[in-house]
Amino acid sequence: MEAAEEDVSRLIKAGIVGASGYSGGELVRLLHGHPDVELVALSSRTYAGKGIGDVFPSLRGLAYRFEEFTPEDIVSLADVLFIAAPSGVAMSYAPVVAAAGKKMIDLGADFRFNDPALYEKWYKMPHSCAELLARAVYGLPEIHRTELAKADLAGNPGCYPTSVILALAPLLSQGAVAGDLIIADSKSGVSGAGRSADIAYNFCEVDEGVRPYGVLKHRHTPEMEQELSLLADSKVKVVFTPHLIPMVRGIVSTVYAKVKPGCTKEQLRSWYEGKYSREPFVRLLDEGSYPTTKAVYGSNLCDISVDFDEANSMAVVCSALDNLGKGAASQAVQIMNIMFGIDETAGIAQLPVFP
Amino acid sequence: MEAAEEDVSRLIKAGIVGASGYSGGELVRLLHGHPDVELVALSSRTYAGKGIGDVFPSLRGLAYRFEEFTPEDIVSLADVLFIAAPSGVAMSYAPVVAAAGKKMIDLGADFRFNDPALYEKWYKMPHSCAELLARAVYGLPEIHRTELAKADLAGNPGCYPTSVILALAPLLSQGAVAGDLIIADSKSGVSGAGRSADIAYNFCEVDEGVRPYGVLKHRHTPEMEQELSLLADSKVKVVFTPHLIPMVRGIVSTVYAKVKPGCTKEQLRSWYEGKYSREPFVRLLDEGSYPTTKAVYGSNLCDISVDFDEANSMAVVCSALDNLGKGAASQAVQIMNIMFGIDETAGIAQLPVFP
Amino acid sequence: MEAAEEDVSRLIKAGIVGASGYSGGELVRLLHGHPDVELVALSSRTYAGKGIGDVFPSLRGLAYRFEEFTPEDIVSLADVLFIAAPSGVAMSYAPVVAAAGKKMIDLGADFRFNDPALYEKWYKMPHSCAELLARAVYGLPEIHRTELAKADLAGNPGCYPTSVILALAPLLSQGAVAGDLIIADSKSGVSGAGRSADIAYNFCEVDEGVRPYGVLKHRHTPEMEQELSLLADSKVKVVFTPHLIPMVRGIVSTVYAKVKPGCTKEQLRSWYEGKYSREPFVRLLDEGSYPTTKAVYGSNLCDISVDFDEANSMAVVCSALDNLGKGAASQAVQIMNIMFGIDETAGIAQLPVFP
Amino acid sequence: MEAAEEDVSRLIKAGIVGASGYSGGELVRLLHGHPDVELVALSSRTYAGKGIGDVFPSLRGLAYRFEEFTPEDIVSLADVLFIAAPSGVAMSYAPVVAAAGKKMIDLGADFRFNDPALYEKWYKMPHSCAELLARAVYGLPEIHRTELAKADLAGNPGCYPTSVILALAPLLSQGAVAGDLIIADSKSGVSGAGRSADIAYNFCEVDEGVRPYGVLKHRHTPEMEQELSLLADSKVKVVFTPHLIPMVRGIVSTVYAKVKPGCTKEQLRSWYEGKYSREPFVRLLDEGSYPTTKAVYGSNLCDISVDFDEANSMAVVCSALDNLGKGAASQAVQIMNIMFGIDETAGIAQLPVFP
Repeated sequence: MEAAEEDVSRLIKAGIVGASGYSGGELVRLLHGHPDVELVALSSRTYAGKGIGDVFPSLRGLAYRFEEFTPEDIVSLADVLFIAAPSGVAMSYAPVVAAAGKKMIDLGADFRFNDPALYEKWYKMPHSCAELLARAVYGLPEIHRTELAKADLAGNPGCYPTSVILALAPLLSQGAVAGDLIIADSKSGVSGAGRSADIAYNFCEVDEGVRPYGVLKHRHTPEMEQELSLLADSKVKVVFTPHLIPMVRGIVSTVYAKVKPGCTKEQLRSWYEGKYSREPFVRLLDEGSYPTTKAVYGSNLCDISVDFDEANSMAVVCSALDNLGKGAASQAVQIMNIMFGIDETAGIAQLPVFP
Repeated sequence: MEAAEEDVSRLIKAGIVGASGYSGGELVRLLHGHPDVELVALSSRTYAGKGIGDVFPSLRGLAYRFEEFTPEDIVSLADVLFIAAPSGVAMSYAPVVAAAGKKMIDLGADFRFNDPALYEKWYKMPHSCAELLARAVYGLPEIHRTELAKADLAGNPGCYPTSVILALAPLLSQGAVAGDLIIADSKSGVSGAGRSADIAYNFCEVDEGVRPYGVLKHRHTPEMEQELSLLADSKVKVVFTPHLIPMVRGIVSTVYAKVKPGCTKEQLRSWYEGKYSREPFVRLLDEGSYPTTKAVYGSNLCDISVDFDEANSMAVVCSALDNLGKGAASQAVQIMNIMFGIDETAGIAQLPVFP
Repeated sequence: MEAAEEDVSRLIKAGIVGASGYSGGELVRLLHGHPDVELVALSSRTYAGKGIGDVFPSLRGLAYRFEEFTPEDIVSLADVLFIAAPSGVAMSYAPVVAAAGKKMIDLGADFRFNDPALYEKWYKMPHSCAELLARAVYGLPEIHRTELAKADLAGNPGCYPTSVILALAPLLSQGAVAGDLIIADSKSGVSGAGRSADIAYNFCEVDEGVRPYGVLKHRHTPEMEQELSLLADSKVKVVFTPHLIPMVRGIVSTVYAKVKPGCTKEQLRSWYEGKYSREPFVRLLDEGSYPTTKAVYGSNLCDISVDFDEANSMAVVCSALDNLGKGAASQAVQIMNIMFGIDETAGIAQLPVFP
Repeated sequence: MEAAEEDVSRLIKAGIVGASGYSGGELVRLLHGHPDVELVALSSRTYAGKGIGDVFPSLRGLAYRFEEFTPEDIVSLADVLFIAAPSGVAMSYAPVVAAAGKKMIDLGADFRFNDPALYEKWYKMPHSCAELLARAVYGLPEIHRTELAKADLAGNPGCYPTSVILALAPLLSQGAVAGDLIIADSKSGVSGAGRSADIAYNFCEVDEGVRPYGVLKHRHTPEMEQELSLLADSKVKVVFTPHLIPMVRGIVSTVYAKVKPGCTKEQLRSWYEGKYSREPFVRLLDEGSYPTTKAVYGSNLCDISVDFDEANSMAVVCSALDNLGKGAASQAVQIMNIMFGIDETAGIAQLPVFP
């Protein structure tokens, strides 16, 4: 009995702020099924009083209700807070979380940057707790696992940056990229735009179409550049073009990087194998196989292919992930698992749904 | 140690015949994650020698391989056999399974009919082991749970019949349907047609289109009529029209039944509540809410709405399920759970993936 | 030269109110290419001052601009007005149009009903010019061609009613339907919901899903019942269930009608052939062929199949059309052609785009 | 009367070889409506004897039938032959066409290359009439209009090359590209893969997915390099990555080219304006607007945006076209119009279908 009580008390109490969006709903799905987690609070101003099934028809039958919590109230209930709200919201929770000695994972951009000026330039608002940035870890486990294990505050990487950084990390950390310019051409499903009533995302405007957007000015660019520069130990610039694809979930990034003379295809491959062969959520594909978002649907996986054009010394690396999974909610759970020292795959080992 | 060994020996050893199709792949996904199952054999003539990841990119990284087994060999390895092959295949396994005292669940039509003549008429082949039909149970747990608990052989219901029978069962078992004619208008995703290289299912031929097919001659009609007649305890006829919808998974059935004079909306609803309130996988929706395939995607759930046009005495019942889930693979696992006396929801309690 | 000038003066001057929606855009596409029409005015409050290419990227390069016209101003410019605005708008234009002796085709519901009470009940607003209803013709050319040729005011049929009435007209006008109850189960693409920023039509909420809506209370029901009752010369009731399909354009209606004893399949077919063999926009399909929305995409066509279940005396008639074509804009142009006594197919004879 | 007879005799008699595929069907749709063309022969071995409506449900009601013609027979009937068959077929027709003094437009690759060795290397077969290559014109009207006006034989450009060459032509012909390496990242709808029964294009394998293919080895690469090198008057290399998108029609190409120091955004834009402002089928978009395949659906248009990253001297040019339109059938008709000296836009001026 004692033991059982201890067991229960060891469940991680999790709260979600902004649980009514797509990432929020995915967090509910995952945390509800997580063996070590108890979901104790869903905060929403708009949906306060509503049952979860009124907001997510898929979750009808579950007992959760939305409430409007103050930061203080939700922090008092939860061991860890997931912020699945627009950038700017997490800043108002972080000091309360820090004061209470709790943990927080922000799915927005408030805690992704080392330099507050960069945040302020791209997100057009002052950073209200820049002093906490030094304690925040950029939450890409494959790059920052050690720091995450000791952290209380993490900025969950953007969906595009996750796909681009994982595609490039082995190459950059080997110092193999020539010059300073990388091209990242990404293709994303529509859920990346959030659960909004914008006419631009009306089915009829999106279906049967593909289009670039945010050309040369997407806010995920500085985030990629920060992390890629750290990996390369020198300044890396990225020309990034996202495209909207008529599908719900998934991102494919096709990354082009000029490689230093003398590199061979075999070397490239060995660097990727060295980096990823023991990673639970990265699958390096056999030569001639290519990533597809269908193969990672609903999972925390990221699939990567590596090609090398020897004549042009150009590496072409393709990665695929689920933007709501490894690009958002399941990666946030992976971060939580690391922060709390439990099995890193707990609650997020689901196989992809296919077809 | 003894205990542990016993634990291991208690795992149900499962084999799959025809594991390279969509239902087969879904079975692998579910049984791989099932806490009480060990997947011991994947049989395929076409893919013998291939790894699972060569056939299902989503399952890359798993160690399963396809082999070509004789019925005898696979039966010797497995406690239970799932037949996810075209109708006609299961008949050649059933006698071997029966002789070995093992269990079998056929996802095809070979063991769905009480009357072999009906099978032979609609499936255009002689039934090679009609004597086993008497021992086979029509595997719809919400209707035949008690028989399934004692059975060794089950015919997994068709995807359309599952949706139509669940929509009508409360009404028919109350004797509330007037006349003998029911209309079932169903809409199915393309995966229901199987994993085939047929040009009719090429993306370009299907996308942005909806069309009826098999009008007045679909093979799921006699299966519905058999079960609905049993429920009504009188002969029921069904006019059934399936439609192909440009989506991968899911069925919505819209069922129209004339109701006996004097019935009220409240009565109807109470019958559905009585029948389904304790069912783990049927969700009766609140008035004014309607089923959508998106709300059951990847799950074993069936959502049902009930409307009643009092002026015309017409009940309009809508049901939604995932044709590869409750319409095929996860229902087969539910049947297995019942047959083996374990928790009926084991391995199939996943929440739907949304959006 | 004189002749040329006369030619120009014979062009029909057309104006569109509400041209920024999907039906409005389709009207611009069709009228721009119509050999006998000059598009003289596009009225919009929201988009006044914008070029057509700002609202429809497909029409970039055309010189049209939106302006905010008063009813008097636009009527003074145009020979015919198309109202592609929500129900209720046309009523405020009709008296001005009538006073000026011009013509008007309303794509909304204001002029579809013979009985203003019916309109007021279903559209929840008083009819401000009920006296004009007697002069308005229900604009289904296959049924009301003769009246349309003499009319100045037409209510363009709803998209669903067009598909259902065309499916049933031959049967009802032969007095062959038994009883008074018909079931119409329709499947529509999302453009039928209009160009709105409603979250329910966000790509992620619609894609990969099918769902019924408006069960037993859709506003197209009384419109069907009015016209079907006229055809049958007796009161006909319809149980109508629309469904939302993840595609942009198209409707398939599957209609179930009990047929009087003694009718044969051959008779049924001959009635449909008699009715439609000379219609330019209705294609009666060969037995065993079925309508698909893909076969009518972007056109003014309606495809129809007829099946008969002799055992149950049940006719199953399926029809397919483009809801923005024969279900809205191109049908409105067909009406205009008839009203002006020009070739009925002028400007709307485009072949469907496939695939 | 005489005049009228002459008029009829001036209709261009067109034949199509391989008319049962998607490009073939689009040719039928366009040529049927072309005011100066009479479609005299549809050749198909597989469908000989079938009516057009049996192969294209959209074209039901038209009187065309497929026949199996010898090259000699079809050449005797037609003034111009369209070859919409796999690469390799056109070679067997070209000598017969040439001998008869007729014209031919090949939608395959047989007549796209100036150097037969290049063809043989990439298409893995010997070129059987290499001597005719010197007379063949690469049929991109915006580049080779003058030569086309005098030609009898044209190789219709590939869909991807059309989009990439149009995106780059102004830049390259100004000598503004630095270095020799260009990156072209393209996204195509599924119809580009042809009308085939390949399981890889089954709806369920494609829908909700995006994936690269043919990385570093797609056969359209040498075709792009040939034409871009001609434009630049120096050897240009292309790293080309095509991606499969879950939509039927359309290509977006996103092209990255390093620009020589000193170039400004204004210069770039002025070159594009200079090149395209008088082109009937190229629309240069305003700054901040981006191409989408939805805006060119079913048309012969190509939309282009130009961006310039001054800090990195990188031009990012995006183009969108309909792969069955400007990428295949309607471009072939444009070529025909030029070859015969008639209005270049005849029969292909349809506005795009939207949404």
